[in-house]
Amino acid sequence: MNLREFQAEWMPRFDAYLYSELRAAVPEQENLHKAMAYSLMGGGKRIRPLLVLATLALAGREISDGFAAAAALEYIHTYSLIHDDLPAMDDDDYRRGRLTSHKVFGESTAILAGDALLTAAFEILAETPTLSADKKIRLIALLAKAAGPDGMIAGQMDDVEGEEKRLTIEELKQVHDKKTGALIRFSVTAGCLIAEADGSFAREMEQFSRHLGLAYQIHNDLKDVVLDEAQTGKTTHHDADLNKNTYPSLLGVAGAIQELNTVIGQAEGCLERLAARIDDAENKIDVFREILDYVRI
Amino acid sequence: MNLREFQAEWMPRFDAYLYSELRAAVPEQENLHKAMAYSLMGGGKRIRPLLVLATLALAGREISDGFAAAAALEYIHTYSLIHDDLPAMDDDDYRRGRLTSHKVFGESTAILAGDALLTAAFEILAETPTLSADKKIRLIALLAKAAGPDGMIAGQMDDVEGEEKRLTIEELKQVHDKKTGALIRFSVTAGCLIAEADGSFAREMEQFSRHLGLAYQIHNDLKDVVLDEAQTGKTTHHDADLNKNTYPSLLGVAGAIQELNTVIGQAEGCLERLAARIDDAENKIDVFREILDYVRI
Repeated sequence: MNLREFQAEWMPRFDAYLYSELRAAVPEQENLHKAMAYSLMGGGKRIRPLLVLATLALAGREISDGFAAAAALEYIHTYSLIHDDLPAMDDDDYRRGRLTSHKVFGESTAILAGDALLTAAFEILAETPTLSADKKIRLIALLAKAAGPDGMIAGQMDDVEGEEKRLTIEELKQVHDKKTGALIRFSVTAGCLIAEADGSFAREMEQFSRHLGLAYQIHNDLKDVVLDEAQTGKTTHHDADLNKNTYPSLLGVAGAIQELNTVIGQAEGCLERLAARIDDAENKIDVFREILDYVRI
Repeated sequence: MNLREFQAEWMPRFDAYLYSELRAAVPEQENLHKAMAYSLMGGGKRIRPLLVLATLALAGREISDGFAAAAALEYIHTYSLIHDDLPAMDDDDYRRGRLTSHKVFGESTAILAGDALLTAAFEILAETPTLSADKKIRLIALLAKAAGPDGMIAGQMDDVEGEEKRLTIEELKQVHDKKTGALIRFSVTAGCLIAEADGSFAREMEQFSRHLGLAYQIHNDLKDVVLDEAQTGKTTHHDADLNKNTYPSLLGVAGAIQELNTVIGQAEGCLERLAARIDDAENKIDVFREILDYVRI
């Protein structure tokens, strides 16, 4: 099964689940619901949910068992974008080709919609009937750690503070390992945990997700320099304007492209080792190979 | 045991727990840790944790079993104050007699510190070794519901929207039932759940917490009108400036005081019924009687 087929089969069902959970979480406050739905259903690529579900498929388990964890992840990813775009943070007017939340709903609603998505993420995981209490607790602890003040939020703080100084490439990697890497790693860790995958499978998948997370960030930085607004759907050249630390600003465009290709090669290595180990892995692993296409330049 | 004795015995231990959990949650990002600690250890009255712990005492259970739930509650209460004070929200410069988070650390750090406290609250509950997985899951589901888009955040949105229109007293009660009531109710519900209290005890305590939550809000509104800044430690006459819906603005000062006394009387009724039912309740229930003193004018 290739990525397109996997998406065609699973993403409409996942989106329906995501939206029904949102309706259940916000039964009364219509404007809050609207603001949450605007960002949540606003055309994201759903990379993180895809990783959860594809990991379950690769491990040979029931794919819909991953819906709650995938939804919680997407809620948290979405809240982080809403808060990141705020005037006090990155001050972005556009995201995915549409106005950002605070431009449409105002700043106070955008702050509350982000807070609400973050809170509801844990409610979804705690209330899903498809997982045992023990699995739910482990997932909640891991998700809170990945998204919290020793994970994503630490990376965001490092990023804010880094604006004022020049980072080394190692420091930049550390920032992104937390800022974007932690949630991407959680995607496959959650899939492995739900599937009760064995240790060597889980370790190889975790390595893959590390490389993918890094590639994702280098690609993102390069996109801002190489592509124009029509292609990225958001205001570009923005990070460079702020003298931000990015892979192209530290390594040059050619150096960043080379680094990206190296990291993608390492991720492919993980997939080859997995393919050699798992019976009938070949067509299930194609989904992951094609996910890597998202981060190629 | 009176309130002062109960506090003297338990609150220093609880504060030490709260701070050690914070250190564990933020091992590396010093400025994030500082901002979180500034608000978390900034002299709040700890009413919600006190309610959790006193409920366990009244139910005759191990009081420290309530630490994780009480800490999670205080983290969430604290994040809600940080975000509420932001320029885009209530735009307050002072809270508890000290500068608000965004005045000290800047807006972006205040937003992130709030997000971090909210996220870490769920990590604390998920990782505490003192509760079973089943209890933890029920607590997390209840806390997310109380703090989320059908609880506290719905109330905050209603409040933001209500600024533009005149509410009836019933509508105002609905707003506050979610905005401040939900977390206060969770305090006693969590205590009852951890203590495995019987249904009639839990129902009476839940009624008590409803009355307390309402009294708390009426008292808060009155304080802004009746007391001056030196006594409240924050910028007062603020809500009235914004033409906000408050109990005094809808009922007049005398009417609001009368309503407050009625509600306190109902809360006292709950405590008397509990005292009559529980052996040796008399001195344990004094703690709750004295908590009501906080909301008397």
